[in-house]
Amino acid sequence: MIGIVIVTHGQFGNILIDTAELIFDSRLEATAAVSIDLKEHVETLRKKINSGIKGVNQNEGILILTDMFGGTPSNLSYSFLEEGKIEVISGVNLPMLIKAVNLRKKENDLHSMAKTIEAYGKKSISLASELVKGNKRG
Amino acid sequence: MIGIVIVTHGQFGNILIDTAELIFDSRLEATAAVSIDLKEHVETLRKKINSGIKGVNQNEGILILTDMFGGTPSNLSYSFLEEGKIEVISGVNLPMLIKAVNLRKKENDLHSMAKTIEAYGKKSISLASELVKGNKRG
Repeated sequence: MIGIVIVTHGQFGNILIDTAELIFDSRLEATAAVSIDLKEHVETLRKKINSGIKGVNQNEGILILTDMFGGTPSNLSYSFLEEGKIEVISGVNLPMLIKAVNLRKKENDLHSMAKTIEAYGKKSISLASELVKGNKRG
Repeated sequence: MIGIVIVTHGQFGNILIDTAELIFDSRLEATAAVSIDLKEHVETLRKKINSGIKGVNQNEGILILTDMFGGTPSNLSYSFLEEGKIEVISGVNLPMLIKAVNLRKKENDLHSMAKTIEAYGKKSISLASELVKGNKRG
């Protein structure tokens, strides 16, 4: 199973996992959150991410989800990018995590799964008033 | 100023606000989180959202951000949609909240701001390995 590591400022990743577990009504296996405290040393933070990866690694690939492109959690995660082994997607939201947990049950091609989740994440952001208009048009 | 209400399962909205406050290094004004506990009665939850809206309302419009289309927090929020007054965007992530806080300082057209944040949210989700490829191509 593809491992999932959520790397964010503070407790954001932990809460995302809590919320997904609430929705699935079960614990998520091979899923970890790494909390980035900007006051800690870069090497300490890199080690924390590395431990997060090791903790969920089942040798079938790792998907890292980060909170925001350009932020420290993303920048640190980018240094772990490894073709075919570790993918990083920034801008995580709840639908992306839910989708990742569902997809990895049947998908074992990491890059293909990462592309699907990126596209799904974009699609999951919707402005209600425009949906309503679209429905009226259709 | 346009008010922002984040309506989510559990503590997700509170943590998003905490994270944004960490990044801005200041408290966010006219911003509230509403925590939806699925065990509570629908009418109680609707009242909580209504209180959240009232608490941030400065009569310049309200932007509601929810965690996931189709979830109870989104479904309840949709019933507050009001043209020109209340907009709802689902699939909130950290970049969207940061953008909303920055945009409302200069933007007072609620619908236009909501459309910008929807587009920005989609753009904020990116797969690192594809960015790298894009850079190599360029």
